[in-house]
Amino acid sequence: MNIRSGRFKKEMDEEAASFTSSLDFDRRIFQADIECNIAHTTMLQEQGIIEESDAQEIISALYNLLDEGIEALELDPSIEDIHMAVEKYVSQQIGDVAGFMHTAKSRNDQVATDLRIALKEELEIIQHLILNFMKKILEIAEKNTETIIVGYTHLQHAQPTTWAHHLLSYAQALQRDYQRIEDTYQRVDQCPLGAAALTTSSFPIDRERTKELLGFSQIIENSMDAVSSRDFLAETVFSLALLSTTLSRICEEIILWNTYEFNLLEISDQYSSTSSIMPQKKNPDVAEIARAKTGVLFGELISILTIMKALPQTYNRDLQELTPHLWNAVDTSKNLLNITCKMLGSVKIRPERGVKLANANFSTATELADLIVKEKQMPFRIAHKIVGMVVSKALEAGMSPEDIDSIFLNICAVEVGVEAPDIPDELIKQALNPLKNIKSRKVVGGPAPESIKRSIVEMRRFIMDKSQT
Amino acid sequence: MNIRSGRFKKEMDEEAASFTSSLDFDRRIFQADIECNIAHTTMLQEQGIIEESDAQEIISALYNLLDEGIEALELDPSIEDIHMAVEKYVSQQIGDVAGFMHTAKSRNDQVATDLRIALKEELEIIQHLILNFMKKILEIAEKNTETIIVGYTHLQHAQPTTWAHHLLSYAQALQRDYQRIEDTYQRVDQCPLGAAALTTSSFPIDRERTKELLGFSQIIENSMDAVSSRDFLAETVFSLALLSTTLSRICEEIILWNTYEFNLLEISDQYSSTSSIMPQKKNPDVAEIARAKTGVLFGELISILTIMKALPQTYNRDLQELTPHLWNAVDTSKNLLNITCKMLGSVKIRPERGVKLANANFSTATELADLIVKEKQMPFRIAHKIVGMVVSKALEAGMSPEDIDSIFLNICAVEVGVEAPDIPDELIKQALNPLKNIKSRKVVGGPAPESIKRSIVEMRRFIMDKSQT
Amino acid sequence: MNIRSGRFKKEMDEEAASFTSSLDFDRRIFQADIECNIAHTTMLQEQGIIEESDAQEIISALYNLLDEGIEALELDPSIEDIHMAVEKYVSQQIGDVAGFMHTAKSRNDQVATDLRIALKEELEIIQHLILNFMKKILEIAEKNTETIIVGYTHLQHAQPTTWAHHLLSYAQALQRDYQRIEDTYQRVDQCPLGAAALTTSSFPIDRERTKELLGFSQIIENSMDAVSSRDFLAETVFSLALLSTTLSRICEEIILWNTYEFNLLEISDQYSSTSSIMPQKKNPDVAEIARAKTGVLFGELISILTIMKALPQTYNRDLQELTPHLWNAVDTSKNLLNITCKMLGSVKIRPERGVKLANANFSTATELADLIVKEKQMPFRIAHKIVGMVVSKALEAGMSPEDIDSIFLNICAVEVGVEAPDIPDELIKQALNPLKNIKSRKVVGGPAPESIKRSIVEMRRFIMDKSQT
Amino acid sequence: MNIRSGRFKKEMDEEAASFTSSLDFDRRIFQADIECNIAHTTMLQEQGIIEESDAQEIISALYNLLDEGIEALELDPSIEDIHMAVEKYVSQQIGDVAGFMHTAKSRNDQVATDLRIALKEELEIIQHLILNFMKKILEIAEKNTETIIVGYTHLQHAQPTTWAHHLLSYAQALQRDYQRIEDTYQRVDQCPLGAAALTTSSFPIDRERTKELLGFSQIIENSMDAVSSRDFLAETVFSLALLSTTLSRICEEIILWNTYEFNLLEISDQYSSTSSIMPQKKNPDVAEIARAKTGVLFGELISILTIMKALPQTYNRDLQELTPHLWNAVDTSKNLLNITCKMLGSVKIRPERGVKLANANFSTATELADLIVKEKQMPFRIAHKIVGMVVSKALEAGMSPEDIDSIFLNICAVEVGVEAPDIPDELIKQALNPLKNIKSRKVVGGPAPESIKRSIVEMRRFIMDKSQT
Repeated sequence: MNIRSGRFKKEMDEEAASFTSSLDFDRRIFQADIECNIAHTTMLQEQGIIEESDAQEIISALYNLLDEGIEALELDPSIEDIHMAVEKYVSQQIGDVAGFMHTAKSRNDQVATDLRIALKEELEIIQHLILNFMKKILEIAEKNTETIIVGYTHLQHAQPTTWAHHLLSYAQALQRDYQRIEDTYQRVDQCPLGAAALTTSSFPIDRERTKELLGFSQIIENSMDAVSSRDFLAETVFSLALLSTTLSRICEEIILWNTYEFNLLEISDQYSSTSSIMPQKKNPDVAEIARAKTGVLFGELISILTIMKALPQTYNRDLQELTPHLWNAVDTSKNLLNITCKMLGSVKIRPERGVKLANANFSTATELADLIVKEKQMPFRIAHKIVGMVVSKALEAGMSPEDIDSIFLNICAVEVGVEAPDIPDELIKQALNPLKNIKSRKVVGGPAPESIKRSIVEMRRFIMDKSQT
Repeated sequence: MNIRSGRFKKEMDEEAASFTSSLDFDRRIFQADIECNIAHTTMLQEQGIIEESDAQEIISALYNLLDEGIEALELDPSIEDIHMAVEKYVSQQIGDVAGFMHTAKSRNDQVATDLRIALKEELEIIQHLILNFMKKILEIAEKNTETIIVGYTHLQHAQPTTWAHHLLSYAQALQRDYQRIEDTYQRVDQCPLGAAALTTSSFPIDRERTKELLGFSQIIENSMDAVSSRDFLAETVFSLALLSTTLSRICEEIILWNTYEFNLLEISDQYSSTSSIMPQKKNPDVAEIARAKTGVLFGELISILTIMKALPQTYNRDLQELTPHLWNAVDTSKNLLNITCKMLGSVKIRPERGVKLANANFSTATELADLIVKEKQMPFRIAHKIVGMVVSKALEAGMSPEDIDSIFLNICAVEVGVEAPDIPDELIKQALNPLKNIKSRKVVGGPAPESIKRSIVEMRRFIMDKSQT
Repeated sequence: MNIRSGRFKKEMDEEAASFTSSLDFDRRIFQADIECNIAHTTMLQEQGIIEESDAQEIISALYNLLDEGIEALELDPSIEDIHMAVEKYVSQQIGDVAGFMHTAKSRNDQVATDLRIALKEELEIIQHLILNFMKKILEIAEKNTETIIVGYTHLQHAQPTTWAHHLLSYAQALQRDYQRIEDTYQRVDQCPLGAAALTTSSFPIDRERTKELLGFSQIIENSMDAVSSRDFLAETVFSLALLSTTLSRICEEIILWNTYEFNLLEISDQYSSTSSIMPQKKNPDVAEIARAKTGVLFGELISILTIMKALPQTYNRDLQELTPHLWNAVDTSKNLLNITCKMLGSVKIRPERGVKLANANFSTATELADLIVKEKQMPFRIAHKIVGMVVSKALEAGMSPEDIDSIFLNICAVEVGVEAPDIPDELIKQALNPLKNIKSRKVVGGPAPESIKRSIVEMRRFIMDKSQT
Repeated sequence: MNIRSGRFKKEMDEEAASFTSSLDFDRRIFQADIECNIAHTTMLQEQGIIEESDAQEIISALYNLLDEGIEALELDPSIEDIHMAVEKYVSQQIGDVAGFMHTAKSRNDQVATDLRIALKEELEIIQHLILNFMKKILEIAEKNTETIIVGYTHLQHAQPTTWAHHLLSYAQALQRDYQRIEDTYQRVDQCPLGAAALTTSSFPIDRERTKELLGFSQIIENSMDAVSSRDFLAETVFSLALLSTTLSRICEEIILWNTYEFNLLEISDQYSSTSSIMPQKKNPDVAEIARAKTGVLFGELISILTIMKALPQTYNRDLQELTPHLWNAVDTSKNLLNITCKMLGSVKIRPERGVKLANANFSTATELADLIVKEKQMPFRIAHKIVGMVVSKALEAGMSPEDIDSIFLNICAVEVGVEAPDIPDELIKQALNPLKNIKSRKVVGGPAPESIKRSIVEMRRFIMDKSQT
């Protein structure tokens, strides 16, 4: 059933037909399209717009197609799209009666509905994958609440912390990614069916009913907006792009920490490649490709935004070109989540290296300053000055943190023009010891093991709550 | 108080200092920075970390600064940033005691907190501007529930509708933009204060208390994530970029409709420019610039995403470079909303042109097909075929919609191999009359005046609800 | 021959292997890879690095593979890439001797060389397509040197011109796109072979010789840069993105001009679709999809740039992820050029509509002002004022350009405080007549037929020159 | 002289005027605008279109303005732009005669010409800065032709090389950036003047003459294209964006190498910041900000491309919005080049660390394989296998490269099923010694000092050639 037949003088040029065909990516909405037709036909019958027997014939043919699968369809570009192919199938099964199924419906509202149905499923999978990733992080964190690592700012040693604390920073970022997708989902979960070509219909259709049958939370009311808005799609791809940014940061750290120089972890053989000649190399190929995928997501986002810019109402064929970018973003994100989670899970932490770095370079200096403030009620900035001098002199003299004592501290204080603070040696050792230092940071969100355990419990609760819905 | 003094052998190169200085855009967080310092100092005192008298001195100096305004600060690039400038001011007022205000706090958590405080205010303004825009649209729509315009698909005449219906499609898109920003706001509204440099502090600070004092809804728990995450900022700019896309579509239509050829509206002199020599030209400069601003927003988004990609934890100076793009996106959006709303409000609709176009080109053909379906229980696709022939023959014969009658319809039916449907002339006229056609589309979200009025009532309720919060 | 065997304890995870595999898009470099191996082996033998007989065996096996085609290869993701697959094939044919072909060569320099060979071919095709497009435009222009259309600024009528003049503006833009790609080609046309992994080799290889054998213009000298730079690829995609912008502007005009309202042209049935029910609609689907493809190109560009940002030297696996975006950009551009050219070629111009619009709205007003300047040596701005008044008054009075005469001009002059210019009626008529107006603009690059013909001759010469190379 | 007066009933809304005003960035074209007016007036007089005395008056007023500078202009948004402001100035100086200067000229061709004049100057400065950067790199390279560093792939040790070789890879990338800008320059260097509003003029103007007077290499012929094309601007910003990518890679390496873990260099105090408390930290703030600027450039590119997409011919006000993004890209690039060059120049290399890393991790393994191939005519892949076993066993046994001898090699060969190669100990030591290894790589573009010196000489010649033009 070529809808052009008899009216157009020339067929569409073959290359043009292939250029404009959506069949490649229409496969993604095959099932949704059938569901949509079933719901619409059911409603038409309930509203008395079409005969019950006709409806039954149509629905039954649609169920057949569902069973047979997409292979049952003739998909050639001259048919233009999946909607026509489905209609053609039904016509071949039941004849002209098939024509009733398009009463008060158009490809414009149908494709928008199909996309939303299919996308909702994908978003649910992605949400599930994020929760999984968070779970995996919590598992590793739980075992590493006292495994020391140095925390970096500017890629320079800043303060000692634990692997657990560091890992939870990933989990918390992923939690926001989850919530962002949850919010996005609400705007995907709106039913455009019944908008027809652009102005609804004069048939007494019931949009609330099809919405309900298709499992949408609400209808997207204004019919012109319903057929022409694709912001739900841009928002989806943005949420995924931002998620990929979170993942790129994790991958960047894996790549760095896996170097000979950092040596904080070892990537599993399963997630690295090597040179045939230098087996000690653990090339972090998976992490590198994963990092690069962020660029793919950014690109898809820009494609989508650019296409949408300044389009007049309502449906324009440009909108079709959005879809492959959506699906590519979805698939890339699912792969990314899956692989990055597994890769992180397989990593071998080198705890001794973390301790060594934490002790090496005065990353506990801040705590020494805090100690002076606490003991002497000295203003923070003054205490800072003293400690600055301590570190400076110690480095010059080749001293390590363990060599700092009360007398040395006094000397430095006097040198910057402050009275000697006379802090007991024991307190100084404690402040400069990375693990003690960490354990003292019990504030909510801090690295002390008790603080971390609290965070893990709460995050577990979040995951459980979300997993049940 | 140069924090580098005495430890660095050379000062920072002057050009480098200027290259890395944030002072230009730090002005935006001046007030937030003071509020943040006051809240933090209050908490420090409540927790017994600093003396009440010291706290009072600090707070009082900060209030002085608030009164005097940013001009009271010395802002030169060698001071690096607003936080140092504020500290310097307080030191000059009260001496070394000022140093206490930085106990258990760092520029890392402070700048993140300041940004969020300042951004929350801006988002509230933007939300307000969107509601205003929606109100303005409803006002115009209300007066045009029977003002005919043709609805377009592919920029081709599709079906007749009303200005009200068309305008409500804008309002509904803006409503989603509003909701998106509302969701984004929740992720901005999280307090990082107390995270300190990256691992909180060993002082017994109370993060919940500063959160409360600063009016945040929750804290952003993990401290490493708290200082290094800027997704709230990317999400903000994306939400604004998508809003700008909505506005670009409105502007595109204003530009098109203002042409000699479309002639559906006239832009007010206040929002157009002219050639000195062709006063009849109404160059839609404001709409063109507004359309172009979408590009600006897309650019800011890409800048931000690119900067964030693959940054290792935690704070890196790259993050500073995000800020000017945030503020530029915010300011551009506010201007865009304000100007586009006013421009649309001042537009003069040409109702007679809308009627003419709706009658000109068989945009009511779909309704004629629907009529046959209804009257004859004929499958939609068959009815379509007949009407396709009707339009085709009519155009060849130079007939207009008013010339179509029952006999002509019968002839066309027979020609496509279908029994003559014998539809009464009166029904045919009704179907082909644009206004009657519109009035028959009473489905939720459709163009019938009663349907539109219902939509307006609901949207008014939405605006009222949101305006009160 | 799995290069990992015996050294890695675990195989790469299957999903990870598939995630990092490049085999999907390696097909594009199959032929280049073989050519590269042949050239390298030839040089090795010429330099006496490998035995002549070994070289002959290798080369002969490679020619076999070329004959058999890519199907002869085993392509499964565990083999990682095309280079390994080719090597495996040769090994299977000739045994261990195959191993000599990788002397002083690495996958790093090989893939960079392959990409450049394959890309050069594609760029030549694209250049050819651009020249073809220009030729097609010249053909149409040649027939329309006196076919009137109004020239727009701000989508408002500005001045009358011809279709030929308008079309040549497209051709000139395409000419720059051509030149841009020509320049890009020079940077693609640089041979990295011999850089090996990153530091060349201690074997006395001759890079100039392989360069020559492979038909490159120069070598890319520094070996670290040779294996890690992909700017040639970003530049290619940018040049294509900018080309697509040119095409998007052409498509936008076709879409606009094909509307009922503009009605300046009719898209051929072969490049449009229709509604089954409204055969008069000529939905410009091809032009819409083509317009949308600009977004695809922009996205590919951003993907590539993002991936390249801040990568340390030298080869990182991220680089692999660039390639599919390159090929997608190339293929999209070829399709775009082909289809847009054909679509434009099939368009039916409506000359009478162009004349009507050119006469309708005082688009000749500027010429009237110029006339006053010429005849009366009056400053341009003063003449402008008079004509502004003329148009203003004429519009109020419902007069058309033909109604303007000397007396009316005088009245208007006096009204703006200028002496009556007393221009003869005949000169006024001539100035206001669109065709005469056009014919008077004989300046280089202007619309006068003689000027246009000159431009066409020159552009033909350009095309001929470039076609010969 | 408000060009709207008397014809528009209402003034432009004040906010709209400010929204559409270009005065902020028009300052950049102040001088160009005057030059352009002078050249045009000169040509008008030479062609006899205006009187010599009038021309002299105009030109003399323009020179006055040039002397007085932009401060002499009244720049308020109601005047719209710099062209009107300049005209107003001249009018105030010489009265109505000023009006002649706009004969056969329009703001459309003028702004396009001004932009190109101003941009040419900026590009020359940028080209100069790139050459300077290259020179600085050569200076450092020259001193470090034997300073060892390990070359990385995947951020893993690959093969030993020298700082000079590594640095030259930067210089070579910058050379391509230079050439790209040189190519871009050719497309900027085309004169649109004389295109007038869009169709040239009926006055007998001489476009070749103004081109010559303004120092352009050619005219941009077709007048519609001349006023509406801005691809020269997109290409400029792309070339700068790609340049910034080169710089971001340099900055990334500086950041990495400056870490405690890599420790390959020390950033100068002048280009780093510190924590007051940890003076040993050298926060690479300048390099971080510089890295982030890549994001800024990408953003500007996307802004420009987005704005250009699908604009119909000819001038649309959207084009104005391109300009600030151009200048921001230009200024950012100049700063970036200047600062990154200085920062790199001030870096202190730690040669001993390079040696240590080059010896630490079998980065010379490839050379050992090459040695076996050379000595035994063994296929590369077989030699690889042996060396893979060597490294594997050595690592397990805790052996370092110096511990490898002929016997150990033989044992490993046998273990992988190959006959013992019996390579003399001395040759093995030589192959595994980083410096000897490096010196053996004499191929063009390789790291051997003689090869590097050759490269430096050639690059110096390039710089000298380009500096003279």
